[in-house]
Amino acid sequence: MEYTAKQLSELLNGQIDGNANAVVNKLSKIEEAESGSLSFLANEKYLPHIYTTGASIVIVNKDFEPEKSVSTTLIKVDDAYSSFASLLEIYDEVKRNKKGIDKSAHISPSAKIGKDVYIGAFVYVGDNAVIENNVKLYPQTFIGDNTTIGHNSTIFQGTKIYNDCIIGSNVTVHSQVVIGADGFGFAPNQGEYKKVAQIGNVIIEDYVEIGSNTCIDRATLGSTIIRKGVKLDNLIQIAHNVEIGENTVIAAQTGVAGSTKIGNNCMIGGQVGIVGHLTIADEVKIAAQSGIGHSIKNKGEVVQGSPAFNMGDYKRTYVLFKKLPQLREQIIELEKTIKDLKQKV
Amino acid sequence: MEYTAKQLSELLNGQIDGNANAVVNKLSKIEEAESGSLSFLANEKYLPHIYTTGASIVIVNKDFEPEKSVSTTLIKVDDAYSSFASLLEIYDEVKRNKKGIDKSAHISPSAKIGKDVYIGAFVYVGDNAVIENNVKLYPQTFIGDNTTIGHNSTIFQGTKIYNDCIIGSNVTVHSQVVIGADGFGFAPNQGEYKKVAQIGNVIIEDYVEIGSNTCIDRATLGSTIIRKGVKLDNLIQIAHNVEIGENTVIAAQTGVAGSTKIGNNCMIGGQVGIVGHLTIADEVKIAAQSGIGHSIKNKGEVVQGSPAFNMGDYKRTYVLFKKLPQLREQIIELEKTIKDLKQKV
Amino acid sequence: MEYTAKQLSELLNGQIDGNANAVVNKLSKIEEAESGSLSFLANEKYLPHIYTTGASIVIVNKDFEPEKSVSTTLIKVDDAYSSFASLLEIYDEVKRNKKGIDKSAHISPSAKIGKDVYIGAFVYVGDNAVIENNVKLYPQTFIGDNTTIGHNSTIFQGTKIYNDCIIGSNVTVHSQVVIGADGFGFAPNQGEYKKVAQIGNVIIEDYVEIGSNTCIDRATLGSTIIRKGVKLDNLIQIAHNVEIGENTVIAAQTGVAGSTKIGNNCMIGGQVGIVGHLTIADEVKIAAQSGIGHSIKNKGEVVQGSPAFNMGDYKRTYVLFKKLPQLREQIIELEKTIKDLKQKV
Repeated sequence: MEYTAKQLSELLNGQIDGNANAVVNKLSKIEEAESGSLSFLANEKYLPHIYTTGASIVIVNKDFEPEKSVSTTLIKVDDAYSSFASLLEIYDEVKRNKKGIDKSAHISPSAKIGKDVYIGAFVYVGDNAVIENNVKLYPQTFIGDNTTIGHNSTIFQGTKIYNDCIIGSNVTVHSQVVIGADGFGFAPNQGEYKKVAQIGNVIIEDYVEIGSNTCIDRATLGSTIIRKGVKLDNLIQIAHNVEIGENTVIAAQTGVAGSTKIGNNCMIGGQVGIVGHLTIADEVKIAAQSGIGHSIKNKGEVVQGSPAFNMGDYKRTYVLFKKLPQLREQIIELEKTIKDLKQKV
Repeated sequence: MEYTAKQLSELLNGQIDGNANAVVNKLSKIEEAESGSLSFLANEKYLPHIYTTGASIVIVNKDFEPEKSVSTTLIKVDDAYSSFASLLEIYDEVKRNKKGIDKSAHISPSAKIGKDVYIGAFVYVGDNAVIENNVKLYPQTFIGDNTTIGHNSTIFQGTKIYNDCIIGSNVTVHSQVVIGADGFGFAPNQGEYKKVAQIGNVIIEDYVEIGSNTCIDRATLGSTIIRKGVKLDNLIQIAHNVEIGENTVIAAQTGVAGSTKIGNNCMIGGQVGIVGHLTIADEVKIAAQSGIGHSIKNKGEVVQGSPAFNMGDYKRTYVLFKKLPQLREQIIELEKTIKDLKQKV
Repeated sequence: MEYTAKQLSELLNGQIDGNANAVVNKLSKIEEAESGSLSFLANEKYLPHIYTTGASIVIVNKDFEPEKSVSTTLIKVDDAYSSFASLLEIYDEVKRNKKGIDKSAHISPSAKIGKDVYIGAFVYVGDNAVIENNVKLYPQTFIGDNTTIGHNSTIFQGTKIYNDCIIGSNVTVHSQVVIGADGFGFAPNQGEYKKVAQIGNVIIEDYVEIGSNTCIDRATLGSTIIRKGVKLDNLIQIAHNVEIGENTVIAAQTGVAGSTKIGNNCMIGGQVGIVGHLTIADEVKIAAQSGIGHSIKNKGEVVQGSPAFNMGDYKRTYVLFKKLPQLREQIIELEKTIKDLKQKV
């Protein structure tokens, strides 16, 4: 797709300073832009690039006045960053604007399929599944029996959602995610283990986004619940009966063990481990690689370490950990001095 | 599916106290149950709920005598917990009682297919593969050339098993597992790396269960072996030529590097890392997030830390780690006192 | 497939000592070999096995002279290890010598397909995708719109590559890898998060190998880049806009956060976490489970710990960490001694 400066200025309600017929066909960073690129300038740090950029068009704030001559075409808008961000979104939507039901898809006759859906090649939709309006199921996805996918949600290629789960609306699930596999429940039995059947489900509320290869296990009984607006990165493990509060954000490769409840608006770093049956308060922040072995009761607490404690204390303590050889020298020195003193007294 | 109290009491060999025509269509926790729910009461802790539960039917031990009036229908059995657990299993089996071979499946003419199998949509079964009786291959699974799946095993949607692997009987493999990919073997060669061909296989013995997105690499030569009754959680990495002993249990996101041998009946926490070429004795327990850099020779040893050592020692040491600022104060205080003393002597 | 000693000696340019008609049909370690096995002897450590091995044929160095009688047939070559390694490779290629385009594959009419490709069952190739000569796309893979796969590359079953990515030549990608999913980018917005569109791509250069279930996210703008010869193990997380330098090797379950640049020829252990926006110099080595919170500027630096510092210092410090209870005893002892001394002075 190609756009002229004139078309973009109308779309963004901006003013052209330069060639109204300049044409762009891609979005680039100002420092990497070349002929045909559309870029933006919002941060002063990148100001020098405006005079050297290869971009054909650059979106700038309307108060921007070049100090020397500029060879690119400028489009002046109220807020260059948010104008560019809207263009990113439009571009992204156009790229992924798939429609229609592929004839190779396996759709159970008892499934209910809404309007304007995309169901790609080799998709499996099970018995009594409900696919609401505007849902996109990319190729090779699996939607189990009795599972519901709410309107405007997108499930990317290869993701598997077991039976009886409920996915809300405006949810995005990236590739190869597994939702609703059995929780890890086994009862010891004379040196062996007997499986505990896992017959609960998973509920994903609206506006959740889930990264690639993340696993969210079904509950033993009841539901594993991911609340509205939660954002999960890639390769995360969410065990059975966990509940993650609204708008909590979790970075890649973190694991949450069974039945733990995490509050709203928490920020959890990558590779964190949280043991089972804990409660984490709202707005808690957990540094990457931390290990959480006890409930965190104070709202907004910030922790680090394995096992974790207050982050400020952790940082001070870790400085001393690195100084242990020196502390030991001080102790040895003291022992010598005292030995000498004792002989004198 | 709906069941009456009468039907359930006959199935469980129990006695009805209440309405024999009460109907249930789902299983719930007693504290979350509503009309149509079947629940159970086994633990005294939940006793108060029996008087307030919305469940239509509750399974109780036969010696249970309510202290006040109960509005739900009771079914009295010898052991309420194990009766309920059997119902969970029956429910689970009914849910997953898929049969037949989907016409979209790609099955090599040279593959051998047993009786009463389920082979779902878009499944690939390679040349000379053997699918024994009662095996379930859910949609979109891949069974490579010459690979065998033993009777009663279930492979859930999307799992990929490379060529020449052997999966035992009564094995459960959850979604998106990869079994038999090449081990990570490269020989340094003038600043680059040359691949070492990985032509061994993977052997999974009977009654093993494997969680979603777990990876088990094939051996360079010989076999990577997961012994009878092992339970692996999600997102685990098992490298080439590893051997995991019978009935060992490993929690999510743990990694075991190449050629390490783990004993029987070990319990290994989540996010543990074990380096290559080690031997871990039977019944060893390893705390979550530990790093194992040396073999563990004593049966039943319990370790923690990265690198790990005895768990009791680790816990005591970590208490002192947290007190390092205080220890440092004590040292500074001692230094001052001694300086004063020296002047006096 | 069966080979005689005569056929192998001609292939390897070696000399037979024994039965030229001995037949083998598999490759085995010398200590596990049985009738029909081909093995090799290169390391003196395994010398005793040559007199007891069940192998039908063993490849040995041409200067090898048995000290007692040997029942197996020997093939003498210049370098037994490299001869055996070439056989491994040939065996591996034969095993995976798939050809042709399966009729169930979904290939967009606008995709360009090269010569001698393998496109297996249930593969999806999107609009304007380019599949160059000799590429192998195993069953159930997904190649998004406008994505290119360079010649001689192999994409194993189930791997998903999003739109607009560039995969070089001679690349191997194992099962269930996700390349090009959205980076984890969200802008805080009144207690909620607004998605930042991710419209960059992923570039994988030539001779890269990528392990199962690894995730490589697309850039926000520009490209996430994996340079020539990089080897990534299983379950690794590579975030948006990361760049990994040539011939760097990364072990399983490591995560690299957004925009970090890693140098050439680095060796990074398993379960390492590297935070975003850092620069790691060439030839740096990072021990398993380390956490990297700052850029590493010195070429060849070796680090360990979380947060990491010089590995030698870390090891010395960790020894003292384990001795903390003893150091504390020393401090208490000193306090007592000084208290006594003070009374005397």
